Amino acid sequence: MSKIRLAIAGYGNVGRGVEYAISQNEDMELVAIFTRRDPNTIKTAFAGVKVNKIEEAEKHIHAIDVMMLCGGSATDLMEQAPYFASLYNCIDSFDNHAKIPEYFKMVDEAARKSKKISIISTGWDPGLFSLMRVLGMACLPKGCDYTFWGRGVSQGHSDAIRRIKGVKFAAQYTIPIESAVAAVRSCSNPTLSPRQKHLRDCFVVAEANADLDYIEQTIKTMPNYFSDYDTFVHFISEEQFNAGHQQMPHGGFVFRTGTTGKEEHQQRIEFSLQLDSNPEFTANVMVAYARAAHRLSLEGETGARTVFDIPMGMLVATDMEELRAKSL
Amino acid sequence: MSKIRLAIAGYGNVGRGVEYAISQNEDMELVAIFTRRDPNTIKTAFAGVKVNKIEEAEKHIHAIDVMMLCGGSATDLMEQAPYFASLYNCIDSFDNHAKIPEYFKMVDEAARKSKKISIISTGWDPGLFSLMRVLGMACLPKGCDYTFWGRGVSQGHSDAIRRIKGVKFAAQYTIPIESAVAAVRSCSNPTLSPRQKHLRDCFVVAEANADLDYIEQTIKTMPNYFSDYDTFVHFISEEQFNAGHQQMPHGGFVFRTGTTGKEEHQQRIEFSLQLDSNPEFTANVMVAYARAAHRLSLEGETGARTVFDIPMGMLVATDMEELRAKSL
Repeated sequence: MSKIRLAIAGYGNVGRGVEYAISQNEDMELVAIFTRRDPNTIKTAFAGVKVNKIEEAEKHIHAIDVMMLCGGSATDLMEQAPYFASLYNCIDSFDNHAKIPEYFKMVDEAARKSKKISIISTGWDPGLFSLMRVLGMACLPKGCDYTFWGRGVSQGHSDAIRRIKGVKFAAQYTIPIESAVAAVRSCSNPTLSPRQKHLRDCFVVAEANADLDYIEQTIKTMPNYFSDYDTFVHFISEEQFNAGHQQMPHGGFVFRTGTTGKEEHQQRIEFSLQLDSNPEFTANVMVAYARAAHRLSLEGETGARTVFDIPMGMLVATDMEELRAKSL
Repeated sequence: MSKIRLAIAGYGNVGRGVEYAISQNEDMELVAIFTRRDPNTIKTAFAGVKVNKIEEAEKHIHAIDVMMLCGGSATDLMEQAPYFASLYNCIDSFDNHAKIPEYFKMVDEAARKSKKISIISTGWDPGLFSLMRVLGMACLPKGCDYTFWGRGVSQGHSDAIRRIKGVKFAAQYTIPIESAVAAVRSCSNPTLSPRQKHLRDCFVVAEANADLDYIEQTIKTMPNYFSDYDTFVHFISEEQFNAGHQQMPHGGFVFRTGTTGKEEHQQRIEFSLQLDSNPEFTANVMVAYARAAHRLSLEGETGARTVFDIPMGMLVATDMEELRAKSL
């Protein structure tokens, strides 16, 4: 059987993760990488991968089954996704929850016109965590759900610290508060404020002669990002930063707790991820959904989809008969 | 909007659970219960539910959207499922893993002929745990999976004890071994024998003058059921049994641990259930899949399906636009 031919648009941490993810799946091959940078400056993980300028993407429509959009959600994807959806089946991990309806509409229109499929917002949140929230609602309609994130690096919060005068490098860890997780796990259905759910731990490298008190106070009082949380600021050296804060771990928990029956029996569903590399796991999830996009496209389906539309059996190469016999 | 009209075939613990589950879902109503017993002897949970003899089931084909098959997997469903699939859209929780291919084929043929849909083996294992095993394979192809069950009552093992001479009542609890769960959770990918994964805890009420040593030895040496496990036998009084062992708790864990990328980063997916009532939770899952069966049927689909074929979004009443806005 011929392999599913994937290409990568945007070669950052997730793009590189997709390159590795494809190498783990025997039914797939990577046929090209597209970048906004000078292709000659890109060092791919595996030898022999063609790197092209992103403007050349439209020249390969007969050679690529699914385009993996690995740009950032803040600006790249809002522009790139409708363009690529007008040419290719696409997968992205768009993660700006508030803008998903607008983004979906835009991608859906482009994909319907091109008669292609786009599955948006794959990854783990949105993505697998979203699936678990809906599964919880379905199975325990009389219940509450809770999502905790971390311990993990939040790129948005780290960026917010970096914009403060005197900050050279910064890493912000979102950490779920153990007693809150324990309260949820005990099925006591607590009402939890943001401060009661997560704390924020910040590791900062300051410029020489920077005002450390100013930096710490600016972080702790920053609205939306930090002021609603217990926030801890640690000033460290550049060496400590490079040695201890270059990894991108993440993870979290989705809980649904509810009751059933006359005696109101307690029932609990818990899903958790512990990831040593957030971008690599996101990439692996995206690649699984690429398989589904390719199949839907072969069946003649068009338009935008989300993880809610995709049956689990479509994510694996194993045929349904074998899945029923071995995994059901 | 008119409600989805469900009926129950078989009114045991799961059937009663389905009756309660329907009451938690505003888009559904229970229109009838069918039983092999004398309908006059059935006391339903809610007033006003019509109870009929099972032979009358075929007289109601225009009044029922989905039939919930709540009989046992050992004998009832092998006979009943093809019959009901020839008349109705059906949901069951058939849980004899080894016989699923044969069962699927039988139900599929009947449902194709009748142009109805049957979703088989819903519930939590098979069911939600199966979904998680496939999700794990999809997202971490380079990895291992592990399923642990319990702490919970195993009906099959309890029955096996009850067949021993001198045993009046028995409850067998399957208990995952904590150190094994911890080893899996640490991503060490251990190889675990049955004895290393679970222990078996048996609570037995003996007949007066029974030979307790004989009972204990017969349990501990019983092939398949107990001889491969560390098994503990506790003799208790009938009063103790009635007070402490009439509940049906269960649960368990599905893990997928794997690696990604050049540095072989460790990644872990964990799903767990803690259920105070196994039959009620099973019923709730079945009812969620009934919603999907009804929708597929309205779209003109026919034949047998499993949880692997059903998109998560089909399990809830919320429309897809709202799901994307609020749950993605």
